[in-house]
Amino acid sequence: MDVSGTLARFVVESRWEDVPPAIRREARRGILNAAGCILAGRREPELARLAKVFPGERALLDAAAATALDYDDTHLRTVIHATPPIAGVLFALSESNATPGADFLHAWIVGLETTCRLGNAVTPGHYERGWHITSTCGVFGAAAAASRLLKLNSSQARNAFGHAATQASGLVEVLGAQSRVLNAGFAARNGLASARLAAAGLEGPAKPLDGRRGFFNVFGGAQDFAQITDGLGTRWEMTNVVYKPYPCGVVLHALIDLCLEAREKLRGAEKLQVSLHPLAIERTDRPEPRNAIEARLSAQHAVAAALLTGKAGAAEFGDAAANDPAIRAFRGRVSIVRDESLDKMAAIVSDGSTTLRADAPRPMDDARLEAKFRGQAGRDAEKWLRFVDSLEPARKVELP
Amino acid sequence: MDVSGTLARFVVESRWEDVPPAIRREARRGILNAAGCILAGRREPELARLAKVFPGERALLDAAAATALDYDDTHLRTVIHATPPIAGVLFALSESNATPGADFLHAWIVGLETTCRLGNAVTPGHYERGWHITSTCGVFGAAAAASRLLKLNSSQARNAFGHAATQASGLVEVLGAQSRVLNAGFAARNGLASARLAAAGLEGPAKPLDGRRGFFNVFGGAQDFAQITDGLGTRWEMTNVVYKPYPCGVVLHALIDLCLEAREKLRGAEKLQVSLHPLAIERTDRPEPRNAIEARLSAQHAVAAALLTGKAGAAEFGDAAANDPAIRAFRGRVSIVRDESLDKMAAIVSDGSTTLRADAPRPMDDARLEAKFRGQAGRDAEKWLRFVDSLEPARKVELP
Repeated sequence: MDVSGTLARFVVESRWEDVPPAIRREARRGILNAAGCILAGRREPELARLAKVFPGERALLDAAAATALDYDDTHLRTVIHATPPIAGVLFALSESNATPGADFLHAWIVGLETTCRLGNAVTPGHYERGWHITSTCGVFGAAAAASRLLKLNSSQARNAFGHAATQASGLVEVLGAQSRVLNAGFAARNGLASARLAAAGLEGPAKPLDGRRGFFNVFGGAQDFAQITDGLGTRWEMTNVVYKPYPCGVVLHALIDLCLEAREKLRGAEKLQVSLHPLAIERTDRPEPRNAIEARLSAQHAVAAALLTGKAGAAEFGDAAANDPAIRAFRGRVSIVRDESLDKMAAIVSDGSTTLRADAPRPMDDARLEAKFRGQAGRDAEKWLRFVDSLEPARKVELP
Repeated sequence: MDVSGTLARFVVESRWEDVPPAIRREARRGILNAAGCILAGRREPELARLAKVFPGERALLDAAAATALDYDDTHLRTVIHATPPIAGVLFALSESNATPGADFLHAWIVGLETTCRLGNAVTPGHYERGWHITSTCGVFGAAAAASRLLKLNSSQARNAFGHAATQASGLVEVLGAQSRVLNAGFAARNGLASARLAAAGLEGPAKPLDGRRGFFNVFGGAQDFAQITDGLGTRWEMTNVVYKPYPCGVVLHALIDLCLEAREKLRGAEKLQVSLHPLAIERTDRPEPRNAIEARLSAQHAVAAALLTGKAGAAEFGDAAANDPAIRAFRGRVSIVRDESLDKMAAIVSDGSTTLRADAPRPMDDARLEAKFRGQAGRDAEKWLRFVDSLEPARKVELP
């Protein structure tokens, strides 16, 4: 089985008429969500620092912006934030190329399929080892999207995967620091460069994914190649990507759903016990977050902010909320308990008498997605909504 | 023990007057060797492809050029080719900054110490796992050299290591392909970007090297932190970097020494048996190389070319030599035997009656180094030789 070649052929040879309407629609929803995250994220202070060092590197900057508020999206099974690197690449390329709207959507879709299917193949193990899977798998999705849009042939697309494999990087260790935005940013830039190098004729190894020293063997984790190739083009893994309703770690979303829904019941409790999966605990057991970055990865803060304010938006996860005396005091009432039987996305919350459970975050329907987008885009919202609505028949993509 | 902080302080706070004359002299030799490799490597076809995609990215292009002919240098214990990423960074920075010669040399030295000491700490294991250690450790050396030249403080230098850690990448899988030059190129570019991001104020994790999900834990291999911190500033690991006498894989150099020295005895043999360490075999057991890239990693080719021509220069490892009928026929007379008792750099060659052994390549004295450089630099040789000779007292580095 030639995994690298099979995936490369799908990326460049799949046909638009074989992509079902529901998948096209989901691509438009994903693009709207990513655009909102980019517009809001560009205003974050980290982005100003990156722009000093990488002026004009739009793919890198937009992918970093898309993740800056931790408000993007999640492929649930792998916890990959899948769209930022792909959005970075496609926004950058559509500025410099005359791209029909259907090509843009198609590149988005093959990019997402690539990222998520690679993630499935190395799950479990890869992420638990400490690889930031958003970046390590995202660079391949970015390379796939760019390979499609730059009209590479399948042999060039395989080379692009090789160039992506030797750039795959990104550590979980940085997730609590300002530099966390780099991982998606570099995945975008490096994936785009991979496709451009392949287009320039640079050859890579024959088996970048499954070779002896290729991506799978070196990066560890499971190696379930069928996850990549089975149902390619008929089963769409991107339907398992969900959009974040709250600007914080995705493993906290079901927990916040519970807190907002049962706020009246829970807000007066003296002690609250929260049960989470061990990975969720590793990422978010932060009883005393000192700033926005840490608050967005604090289960204690999420519970306190949601119960005290009845909201869980950008303000509730900002620097001021992290240091709000009432929220700080409430965080002390929350204890975290390890429960390996739970899904990574699930949560149980109990005040001693009432116990509530959610197995997954509530999905975002169109109305919630549009409301989220309007909150992020502000005055630019209308023209972006029109842009996404009219994307598929557009003869040439022109970003608002 | 704060490994990241200790190394960061050494990088930015060590004093020039504490660097012994022998180390300064070795830095000049290393710079001359790297300059020659860059000047010759720029003419290789891979570089034209890279220049299309990365115009003006001098750090990346020069580091890639330095490795293009596999003629650079080797830190023997780790098999790191240590100077290309550092040379790329320093050549690029000295074009845009007013750099005194001593600062240039000092940045070179702390960069090399960083790369080689990190390599020692993760050896064995890391390289054997499939990480191209030249790149994975080289990005830290590049970040160190840039941190020194950009006058970061120690807290910024620690941040630079964090940004380098989340970019560390590079697979052994690509070493037999055109894309092999990317690994050193990206190490240079990414290390330089790491220091620039830190200078712009972007913060990284507190323990990028030794944190729970930091470089050491995630990338595997040994974790001997004393290799990094012991004798820092008094024992100079860069003295174990040797310059390549032949443009091919370093594990073939002792073998070529033997063939050239005993050519009269060995050239008539019907069968030749070559014993090598398993890692050397994994890299270079290529009985039928098809082009220059493969010939430079072929033990069979190295023996055949050296014995037939009495030379082992660029021509003997070029595309024409790889396909020369006489050399191809001679390669068939060479068999490879695994010998775990040997050092990675050692070789034994036997024709049945005579058995010759070399434990390490012959070192390059000044005369051989200058001859190698003249062969690479051609008409530019004199001005570069003067440049390196007068580097230490120079008030401002101006590359020839």
